[in-house]
Amino acid sequence: MRKEATILRPTHNGDRYELTSPTVMPKAAGFLWNQKMMVQITCRGYATAQFMQPEPAKYAHAPNLEAKTFMQPEPNYYAHHPGRFVYIKDEESGHLFSAPHEPVRTVPDRFVFSTGKSDVAWAVESNGIRVEMVMGLPTHDVAELWTIKVTNVSGRPRRISVTPYFPIGYKSWMNQSAEWNEELVGIVASSVTPYQKAAEYFKNKYLKDKTYFICETTPDSWEANQQNFEGEGGLHNPSGLQEPQLSCGDARYETPTAAVQYRLALKAGDEREYRFMFGPAYDEAEIRTMRTRYLSKQAFIRTADEYASYMARGQGCLRIETPDKDLDNFVNNWLPRQVYYHGDVNRLTTDPQTRNYLQDNMGMNFIKPEVTRKAFITAVSQQEESGAMPDGILLAEGAELKYINQIPHTDHCVWLPVTLEVYLAETGDYGLLQEKVRSSNGDEFTVFERFSRAMDWLLRLRDERGLSYIAQGDWCDPMNMVGYKGRGVSGWLTLATAFAANLWANVCEHEGRTDLAQRYRAGAAACNEAANKHLWDGDWFARGITDDNVTFGIKKDPEGRIWLNPQTFAILSGAAGKEQISRILPQVDEHLNTPYGIQMFAPPFTKMREDIGRVTQKAIGSAENAAVYNHAGVFFVHSLYSLGGEQDRAYTLLRQLIPGPSDADYRQRGQLPIYIPNYYRGAWKEFPRTAGRSSQLFNTGTVSWVYRCFIEGLCGLRGDDKGLTVKPQLPSAWNSIRVTRQFRGATFHLDIRRADVDQVTVRQGGQTLPEARITNIRAGQTYQLAVLVPQ
Amino acid sequence: MRKEATILRPTHNGDRYELTSPTVMPKAAGFLWNQKMMVQITCRGYATAQFMQPEPAKYAHAPNLEAKTFMQPEPNYYAHHPGRFVYIKDEESGHLFSAPHEPVRTVPDRFVFSTGKSDVAWAVESNGIRVEMVMGLPTHDVAELWTIKVTNVSGRPRRISVTPYFPIGYKSWMNQSAEWNEELVGIVASSVTPYQKAAEYFKNKYLKDKTYFICETTPDSWEANQQNFEGEGGLHNPSGLQEPQLSCGDARYETPTAAVQYRLALKAGDEREYRFMFGPAYDEAEIRTMRTRYLSKQAFIRTADEYASYMARGQGCLRIETPDKDLDNFVNNWLPRQVYYHGDVNRLTTDPQTRNYLQDNMGMNFIKPEVTRKAFITAVSQQEESGAMPDGILLAEGAELKYINQIPHTDHCVWLPVTLEVYLAETGDYGLLQEKVRSSNGDEFTVFERFSRAMDWLLRLRDERGLSYIAQGDWCDPMNMVGYKGRGVSGWLTLATAFAANLWANVCEHEGRTDLAQRYRAGAAACNEAANKHLWDGDWFARGITDDNVTFGIKKDPEGRIWLNPQTFAILSGAAGKEQISRILPQVDEHLNTPYGIQMFAPPFTKMREDIGRVTQKAIGSAENAAVYNHAGVFFVHSLYSLGGEQDRAYTLLRQLIPGPSDADYRQRGQLPIYIPNYYRGAWKEFPRTAGRSSQLFNTGTVSWVYRCFIEGLCGLRGDDKGLTVKPQLPSAWNSIRVTRQFRGATFHLDIRRADVDQVTVRQGGQTLPEARITNIRAGQTYQLAVLVPQ
Repeated sequence: MRKEATILRPTHNGDRYELTSPTVMPKAAGFLWNQKMMVQITCRGYATAQFMQPEPAKYAHAPNLEAKTFMQPEPNYYAHHPGRFVYIKDEESGHLFSAPHEPVRTVPDRFVFSTGKSDVAWAVESNGIRVEMVMGLPTHDVAELWTIKVTNVSGRPRRISVTPYFPIGYKSWMNQSAEWNEELVGIVASSVTPYQKAAEYFKNKYLKDKTYFICETTPDSWEANQQNFEGEGGLHNPSGLQEPQLSCGDARYETPTAAVQYRLALKAGDEREYRFMFGPAYDEAEIRTMRTRYLSKQAFIRTADEYASYMARGQGCLRIETPDKDLDNFVNNWLPRQVYYHGDVNRLTTDPQTRNYLQDNMGMNFIKPEVTRKAFITAVSQQEESGAMPDGILLAEGAELKYINQIPHTDHCVWLPVTLEVYLAETGDYGLLQEKVRSSNGDEFTVFERFSRAMDWLLRLRDERGLSYIAQGDWCDPMNMVGYKGRGVSGWLTLATAFAANLWANVCEHEGRTDLAQRYRAGAAACNEAANKHLWDGDWFARGITDDNVTFGIKKDPEGRIWLNPQTFAILSGAAGKEQISRILPQVDEHLNTPYGIQMFAPPFTKMREDIGRVTQKAIGSAENAAVYNHAGVFFVHSLYSLGGEQDRAYTLLRQLIPGPSDADYRQRGQLPIYIPNYYRGAWKEFPRTAGRSSQLFNTGTVSWVYRCFIEGLCGLRGDDKGLTVKPQLPSAWNSIRVTRQFRGATFHLDIRRADVDQVTVRQGGQTLPEARITNIRAGQTYQLAVLVPQ
Repeated sequence: MRKEATILRPTHNGDRYELTSPTVMPKAAGFLWNQKMMVQITCRGYATAQFMQPEPAKYAHAPNLEAKTFMQPEPNYYAHHPGRFVYIKDEESGHLFSAPHEPVRTVPDRFVFSTGKSDVAWAVESNGIRVEMVMGLPTHDVAELWTIKVTNVSGRPRRISVTPYFPIGYKSWMNQSAEWNEELVGIVASSVTPYQKAAEYFKNKYLKDKTYFICETTPDSWEANQQNFEGEGGLHNPSGLQEPQLSCGDARYETPTAAVQYRLALKAGDEREYRFMFGPAYDEAEIRTMRTRYLSKQAFIRTADEYASYMARGQGCLRIETPDKDLDNFVNNWLPRQVYYHGDVNRLTTDPQTRNYLQDNMGMNFIKPEVTRKAFITAVSQQEESGAMPDGILLAEGAELKYINQIPHTDHCVWLPVTLEVYLAETGDYGLLQEKVRSSNGDEFTVFERFSRAMDWLLRLRDERGLSYIAQGDWCDPMNMVGYKGRGVSGWLTLATAFAANLWANVCEHEGRTDLAQRYRAGAAACNEAANKHLWDGDWFARGITDDNVTFGIKKDPEGRIWLNPQTFAILSGAAGKEQISRILPQVDEHLNTPYGIQMFAPPFTKMREDIGRVTQKAIGSAENAAVYNHAGVFFVHSLYSLGGEQDRAYTLLRQLIPGPSDADYRQRGQLPIYIPNYYRGAWKEFPRTAGRSSQLFNTGTVSWVYRCFIEGLCGLRGDDKGLTVKPQLPSAWNSIRVTRQFRGATFHLDIRRADVDQVTVRQGGQTLPEARITNIRAGQTYQLAVLVPQ
């Protein structure tokens, strides 16, 4: 393959990226979703798909019995990992290759992996045959829509076979089978979700236990039996392809697969286009319906249009033109898409962690604030009698708290006022606070009252020193043993409580409840005072104090000496005075900064600390060892923007969150710049080989905050109860940017540039506004504003 | 490879089988165990190993996050399945092959897979290099001991590299790493068993979370990183082998592996021998100890001797010489080994199902009856207050009832007298009955009283018709919905209760408790009467009656019309009179017989019957669809032997349980004749392609009964309180057999042949004994007996 100077090409408007080699970023993937499903597919053809029924399920599996687990970072691919492939065999020479790249791994003459907002596509050329593959999704159903086009670009007549191979994998130990279905023109694999207790039968009865692969055009032969297909040849050279046709075998308690073969005689320049559907179904009738609804050229076109409209509804409230085109691409196209994904489908779980649910919906304020409004009501309707928020918010009937949500964490209440702040800023809808909400335990309070009760609970759950109990965890770091005996406290949570209480006091004040405002301000002050008294270590704040009264995250700790989150929240809460901040910031720079962003803590742990718990054990040999946790990183950026005067530091860190733009950076991170992952690997000094690697996991509370930082921080366009404040914080290297901001139904075009002014000056139609704030905003109106910022 | 008339060769004494092709029975496997671990390894090199700590765990994993599950039948192998391999590369020509066969799959010039009772070995030749591999186990520790010998048989000097490759796989989502350890001369992979709740930490703290692969001889290079090793080449042609040496890379939250490379210059005829250890460990100190203890030629020899002695302790109480040499091999070598395995390690679970625990220990009567004695005490010490037996017997501190043991089954009490019968017959130790046993709920009873209480419970748990409730299941068939509402009854259990009660009545009588004997005989009679009244369908007994009063397993059922177990137990219980038996047997022949044994039911189910439950849903597309369930089959054989006069029918069915001896049979079943699997696939008429396939699962209650059928049935050598009865039931095609039987410390050599006698006649030293029974047996004595049986 030719070496290319650039392995990654954005299209002119940046809403599509093209990767020109399958090997330099083998895990580089696109992802598509709708409200019922999600597919992540790599440039080489490996795929991970899940759908909701209502719990997450799969229709294509590994070849063995997989564990059910929460979504894992850094997926591991191997020859038999589920994927979507097409084999092309020259029936004269016997030459074989596969598209996109796996399983044959022939070095292609040309390779383009093209991931857009509404589809994922490839163009692969080898041995004079071009294969173009496109995957799309419907907007409302669970299915993959595949177009595979084959063109003879060799300039001479060719006889080839085209064999799409969509492995189905191990479906069930209870039973599994697969066979050709003549009427549906495809392979239908059947199984039953295993169960043992009789009661489970009724729970599972209507699960979509079938997987189908159906063809618009009847193939010449087919194979439903994985072992028949592979044979002795193996996936890189399947035995099934060494015969004149596939064996048309079925699978009877054997691993099912879906392979179909078309044998073609192509003149020079000839092309053939095929369409397929792949997905789960309850029964054949459902497959028949899906076939009728989608499996035709016209329906594919219509469905792609509908899906593009669906994606367009998530385009966000900000467009920027800055000196950094890669940044513009990301912020205008991909960042709101990722924010939309989170707000749209809540990570495809039925029990999102409460903090995630609130923060994911915080991002949705910038896209569809009505969704956020409902989310607040849903969340507080599950508030406990004590005022505490549960560890997870249940979104489906019969859903249960699973995995980490069974571990008591004490931070969930914090996120109520923190995320409400954006809702009120974007909408000015203080009316939400007066909504009455009945909870499942039968009590009824207004949203306002529920928030107050949550704040009371937070302030109450502190020890005699005024520090917040941690129980088995707070935020970001699984410190499950700091306080499991009931005494340990969290430095971060103490400061976060202060921050939240102050934010809530502001709302109380707005609502005329000065008494309450005073109560929460006093609470916040008490927290800050306690933190300063017990946790200030001279140059930064400690992370916490264990059950056995050992303060940690301090200078004398050889490992886990300094933690980012307490510093961030000391700034946000006001606990850190100017002098303290001037001590903290250089320490953060020195200990935590890396070329890939800011580490959550340092130095890395090399052994278990039983008085801290899982985070330290996880850190040993873990990707999360002193990781660049983007959620923590962006919060630090938020604190810097809130501080003012730190725009360069803030911008540098913000920019590091986004992969690229250099090829070297892409290669090291291993990810396309179409989303921000939850982490990049840290331990930069200790493990430089792996530092910077992307988790490849796009589920992260990070993105709502990144979007917020761009909107409210860098562009400085933040709403309040009656208007929109303009207070840009451009990095000093920039002289101007142009911004379009949607706000309360109005459109603001801003030309922001440096000028010889003392303070931000806003001009509208040649008039300088009395303050850098627009009020009396009218929906539907377009505002052209020239903004001058000091040099 | 040359075609061979015979693909499988037994050694002269049948304690070792040699398979001469890796492709015709790709799943053919050997297995080794000790009390802490088990390894099953296929002829092609794929392996499944587990060890107890105390729950079953693995030290070599799939490349993805596997589900924890009970041991599954018909394991599915795929390129990245765990295995033990060695790559041989000709460093001059570049020719590459691997032994045993995977992952390269080169067609070898010579191939022998040789599975013995104490080791598993291969000899593979390709490209002028012979590779000999041997795997053994220590008797008391958890580790695999590998010898790999390489010989230049090409007749010319060669430069080759030898690269053992032992993939370690995905160890933990929490963390995983691997690196070379200079001092231990090997690769050590580390991980932490994932946990979330703080309490789990203490449970997991001392788990053996490391996997090591250590070398006696320092290699030239090594690789601990799976991705480095494989690269773009893939497992069939790893990139790591395309370089001058392995990259010596580590794994940091990357999939660990263990590969080491030796580069050799071999003269013609030169050979090199290497030794390795592979296994789990808690820490490096433990690995160091294991290295010192085992990793040398001398230690390997000593350990193999010890292990052979350990196996020899399980050689059983029967040796036969019959006209069928394959049968002799099986009964003399492999059957007692499989029985020993069950009794020795209880299937490597900590909560064996009560019925399995009792039956597995029933087999141990023929090997080490003192183990069985303890097992009875252990079992009844867990009897519930009601007299019921729990669903599983807990064998380790902290163990819990898992999987199927959480589903209420009603048959467990049945197995107490059924298995006690053999203990008393083998030992005459009625003293066991007077042992006092305190249970965990605090009550104290003698074993005798506990058995009576169990029988009372069984007789009590019947409905107004006198039929036994089934709850969510009884034996063999997961009929979890027949009686989940509390009303459904089991035909089989009603008959089994009668059988058990009669057996117990015999014991009561022996103990002088005529009153109790009457009570239990009356109970048995009531069960039989109820069965005849409600379940006799004219030609066979029904399987049960559902919650909604629907009788099933009857003529009018299009699917699941006739079930084997009720017929077997109607014979054993006495419910079926002669006339009924004469109707039942031809129906069983007609509906249930197949060339691979007797099906558990027929016809197969093609859809769910909600009023029966899981077995019907499992049957759809399942290997267990109308399967040849050997446990049910052998019970039928047992009933035939107990009946008398059915020796040909009994022998035919018994012989079908054992794979072979024809090549065609081996190929279809896919298994070596070294164990009896729990099932062969059924649905013989409906799915002939897959019928007869072995489950490859050697955990099965079948074997105790097969051994019993050979000993007490075919050879007719059954103990009683004072002696040994001789009542052979030779198949009519046989004229004579020779038998050696160990019994109460004495050795009996029997020459059994047909003669013109009216009844079995036993001669000792030329004297005809007054009855076909030896009494006054003295331990240590050898008895030479000539037995004449009627023609």
